[in-house]
Amino acid sequence: MTVLTVGGDDGVVIRGAKLMICGTAAADEIFFLPGSGYREEDRDFAVAGVVPKDVEGLTIVETRRPSDGRELEDGFDGPTQTGITQAYLLFDDVFVPRERVFMAGEYKYTGPIITRFTATYRACIGACVAGQGDVMVGAAALIARANGLSAKTFRDKLTQMELNNETTFAMGVGAIALGEKHPSGTWLADSLTAHGNKIHVATLPYETKRLAQEIGGGIVETGCLPSYLDFTSPEYGHLIQKYVTAGAGSAETRARVARLIEWLTIGAGVPGCMHGGGSPDGARMVVYGSTPLERYAALAKDLAGVTEDLEEPTRKK
Amino acid sequence: MTVLTVGGDDGVVIRGAKLMICGTAAADEIFFLPGSGYREEDRDFAVAGVVPKDVEGLTIVETRRPSDGRELEDGFDGPTQTGITQAYLLFDDVFVPRERVFMAGEYKYTGPIITRFTATYRACIGACVAGQGDVMVGAAALIARANGLSAKTFRDKLTQMELNNETTFAMGVGAIALGEKHPSGTWLADSLTAHGNKIHVATLPYETKRLAQEIGGGIVETGCLPSYLDFTSPEYGHLIQKYVTAGAGSAETRARVARLIEWLTIGAGVPGCMHGGGSPDGARMVVYGSTPLERYAALAKDLAGVTEDLEEPTRKK
Amino acid sequence: MTVLTVGGDDGVVIRGAKLMICGTAAADEIFFLPGSGYREEDRDFAVAGVVPKDVEGLTIVETRRPSDGRELEDGFDGPTQTGITQAYLLFDDVFVPRERVFMAGEYKYTGPIITRFTATYRACIGACVAGQGDVMVGAAALIARANGLSAKTFRDKLTQMELNNETTFAMGVGAIALGEKHPSGTWLADSLTAHGNKIHVATLPYETKRLAQEIGGGIVETGCLPSYLDFTSPEYGHLIQKYVTAGAGSAETRARVARLIEWLTIGAGVPGCMHGGGSPDGARMVVYGSTPLERYAALAKDLAGVTEDLEEPTRKK
Amino acid sequence: MTVLTVGGDDGVVIRGAKLMICGTAAADEIFFLPGSGYREEDRDFAVAGVVPKDVEGLTIVETRRPSDGRELEDGFDGPTQTGITQAYLLFDDVFVPRERVFMAGEYKYTGPIITRFTATYRACIGACVAGQGDVMVGAAALIARANGLSAKTFRDKLTQMELNNETTFAMGVGAIALGEKHPSGTWLADSLTAHGNKIHVATLPYETKRLAQEIGGGIVETGCLPSYLDFTSPEYGHLIQKYVTAGAGSAETRARVARLIEWLTIGAGVPGCMHGGGSPDGARMVVYGSTPLERYAALAKDLAGVTEDLEEPTRKK
Repeated sequence: MTVLTVGGDDGVVIRGAKLMICGTAAADEIFFLPGSGYREEDRDFAVAGVVPKDVEGLTIVETRRPSDGRELEDGFDGPTQTGITQAYLLFDDVFVPRERVFMAGEYKYTGPIITRFTATYRACIGACVAGQGDVMVGAAALIARANGLSAKTFRDKLTQMELNNETTFAMGVGAIALGEKHPSGTWLADSLTAHGNKIHVATLPYETKRLAQEIGGGIVETGCLPSYLDFTSPEYGHLIQKYVTAGAGSAETRARVARLIEWLTIGAGVPGCMHGGGSPDGARMVVYGSTPLERYAALAKDLAGVTEDLEEPTRKK
Repeated sequence: MTVLTVGGDDGVVIRGAKLMICGTAAADEIFFLPGSGYREEDRDFAVAGVVPKDVEGLTIVETRRPSDGRELEDGFDGPTQTGITQAYLLFDDVFVPRERVFMAGEYKYTGPIITRFTATYRACIGACVAGQGDVMVGAAALIARANGLSAKTFRDKLTQMELNNETTFAMGVGAIALGEKHPSGTWLADSLTAHGNKIHVATLPYETKRLAQEIGGGIVETGCLPSYLDFTSPEYGHLIQKYVTAGAGSAETRARVARLIEWLTIGAGVPGCMHGGGSPDGARMVVYGSTPLERYAALAKDLAGVTEDLEEPTRKK
Repeated sequence: MTVLTVGGDDGVVIRGAKLMICGTAAADEIFFLPGSGYREEDRDFAVAGVVPKDVEGLTIVETRRPSDGRELEDGFDGPTQTGITQAYLLFDDVFVPRERVFMAGEYKYTGPIITRFTATYRACIGACVAGQGDVMVGAAALIARANGLSAKTFRDKLTQMELNNETTFAMGVGAIALGEKHPSGTWLADSLTAHGNKIHVATLPYETKRLAQEIGGGIVETGCLPSYLDFTSPEYGHLIQKYVTAGAGSAETRARVARLIEWLTIGAGVPGCMHGGGSPDGARMVVYGSTPLERYAALAKDLAGVTEDLEEPTRKK
Repeated sequence: MTVLTVGGDDGVVIRGAKLMICGTAAADEIFFLPGSGYREEDRDFAVAGVVPKDVEGLTIVETRRPSDGRELEDGFDGPTQTGITQAYLLFDDVFVPRERVFMAGEYKYTGPIITRFTATYRACIGACVAGQGDVMVGAAALIARANGLSAKTFRDKLTQMELNNETTFAMGVGAIALGEKHPSGTWLADSLTAHGNKIHVATLPYETKRLAQEIGGGIVETGCLPSYLDFTSPEYGHLIQKYVTAGAGSAETRARVARLIEWLTIGAGVPGCMHGGGSPDGARMVVYGSTPLERYAALAKDLAGVTEDLEEPTRKK
């Protein structure tokens, strides 16, 4: 969604925005590329390049995340070892020198850019959410023990969680293995497989999170654990701790694991898997568009012993 | 988990806790009942009664909910028209006068209490989560329009959401219709059906939430909308509003609907449907235990023309 | 799909067909009613009435079912205690006397007929497939034992099967409980709930069948048991029986139960639940059409604090 | 399940059976290998080798399949271009010469044989069922047109079918890509991924079949099409053909496609995907056993800031 304005020989000036960009706070350079395939009349939007994060004219607005306020609090209500960053990037007439501009008006290459970018991204995102899912498996095993049960009690659920994780991971690997080498030397993932994987990425982690909550019990679900402040209250904190203590480990350990699962499944730590890297409905369009329907129909005709052609009906009404 | 201690003729003194209790802040009276079926050695735990919320010795600790801090903020990041309350109730030697004690030691009635309570509760909870799901359907239609799309675009997804809502609602109605009148005059829901419904209550709303997020796009999902403070910043708020504006309605309207869906699906407003009123695995036990397996096996034997009895194998190893 | 031709004062003559009609062989009278809601130009199709099965001009063609040839064989490859009947009914100028004609041209009542018929049918079909599912639960328990395992090994799968059965049963009960009395005295089921149930009826039994096959092992699945003729071969039948013997019961008993599950899940005994009584996509249309979308949107607007109206976008392109 | 008996220096004599073996009729040589990991006391069962199909002492009994009788009939009720073969192989003292014996008593290698065989088999079976699923996609498109509808009407369902097919295919590719080269030069698929794929192979094709039936309408489902004999009856065949004609193509074409879908989804052509190559529960055991639970738990502990170890509870009762 970046707009190209003027420029001159030494570079271009861009105006526009990149919205919902993960990891900005951890990046040194900001890459921008076309948001869709463009036609001639959209020529001014066909721009790609890279700027340093502190370039003049760029405003970075960090977004809100569930329970983000907790990150500024003491105690265990918020995560201590990790965090998330998502941002809106507002480009208000930012100058990009020529050597950092990769595209400026060549609209006919915008389609292939999107295709190649999404195929590769959606192959790789399977491993990303699988990693988050691995932590959910581990956290689920811990909370079972902290609740007083063996992790084995939940063997079927843990197996399903692991299967979900391995599916997005291995289908991503499959997309890459089925890809091909571009003449430039870059490896491009198989588009149909990668977009198929995106559909799983947008659905399977939801089941994994649900199972983590189911294993965890009420303590990990919405609104069922007092704050760190109450937990450590000199007046009644000892009572909370007494009643939170259940299986293996201290009350604090159980609370910490419960908070981790809350963060992973209904807090800032949920995999932004639904629309991250594009929506599942967009991926479904690619899957449907890549399905060789007539070839499959020919196979079926042959097996059925059908010789006449079956045309699509002409539009009624 | 309430402990009966001493008492005397005029009442009993109780010690213990009720954890994860929804709606406490809105209640005038606190009802306590046994948490499970008890045996003779647990006699002291077989206690039921009711106390006013401000009774001496009772400490009520409101728990944390996702993004609860936002409820204290200005603007639209938190809900303005609604809210949630969940609490830990700590009873530290609370006196309950005789006329408010319904059970004190009669452990053999604790099993039936649990059975009847859960059957009725789990019939009714279907309507509770259906109502929350109705709001998700409405919010999904709104965000589609605010994003610039017709709600009809998502006809299949909205139909599935409605089906999920109607399933938990109607199966709850079915549980009540299949129930029976207790000699006391109270109507008791059918246990097998009600517990079956609890399994749906613990799973279907997760799909409904996922579909609401899928319809809503990235803006409703985790961490993809700046704060109200940034939204109204005199310096760059106009740019955020410019880029948030999409379909029908103003930027603020789109942001408000997005925040509502965030609240409903990954905030404090999610239906506490997984373990509320007991866990789905507990419900599965009741469903399995209520399945007339041998009667069904006899039907199958008859249809298969099998005449010999098939015994369960004796335990190996 | 019945066509009204001439008639005269004493009755009508009909021409047309009823296709895919279950239970014909067991019926004495054939009821025909409009297949859809008709308009004035379809007036001749708006006909309802009843004829005896042996009326002149009616040809009943029994259809094929999976493995139907086995029903004519000796031994246990086909079912012995039960069967299925489905037929095409071809009406080639059948005369129906006036007193057996319930509608002849009153096209404007065809819509309500369909609506009321489907609502009632789709409430009741839930119990029908639940009964078939009960037999699958029983057969699954038997085959587990015949395979040498306790039925309890498959507790989770049996619970899910039972849940599926109880869901279609209880949601049908719910549809009836939510219905209302017609002034004529007939009870009409609630349409939205009944059609929602039809969607479950068209999907849940597929999972129940899959689980029955999963519990049963290879012996119940496609093509994994020799014929009764081979089973009793004087030459090598003893070897087949030796290797088929596994857990509780004789080889023949195990084979009989395996054949029953084959019949129930991939033979003539499968619940004709997908399109029986109309297709699930038709039911989805009713569910979507019955969803009070704007009412739900108003609830969401209120909670979100949105005051402006969000219109559906006008058609693009 | 092969038993080793005596032998002498020039070979071994085997007795036993291979049950439920696909493709036997098309094979020239019969390979036998251990059915499980064996211990010393099972030494006589640790045998592998190969015999020609017409070896003395081997009886091959072809099993029954749904609607197998139709294969012997004229017309289109049975498949004409394809078929299935499954057999019981009864080895009654079959002599195998030394050079065709690969294992005779080396029980300690039986475990690795099974592990390597199943990993490779379950990686590849994903492509097998995907191919069958491709035909279902094609047949579904054809029947839509023969029913009078555009295949695009069912875009969402066809996309889901394609996704299911691509998932088992690509996860199989992923299992191979994640595998490793054995010192012997053979490539071995990754066991965890391959077994995960087996779970999908045992479940996803059921949804694909259900969707094919849903797209096809009643005509493809159980028992809703008269026989070829009735279809061509000189007396009333023309009526059947009249009423079977719907959209694109002749009545016979519609009937042929309907029969193909019946064959693919409820006839002999269903993918024997549930227990073929072993059961999904066996695969689940491998997935669970391969899950590095303690490594994931350590990741979760680190993120939660938990320092104490959480032990599995010691067995209660």
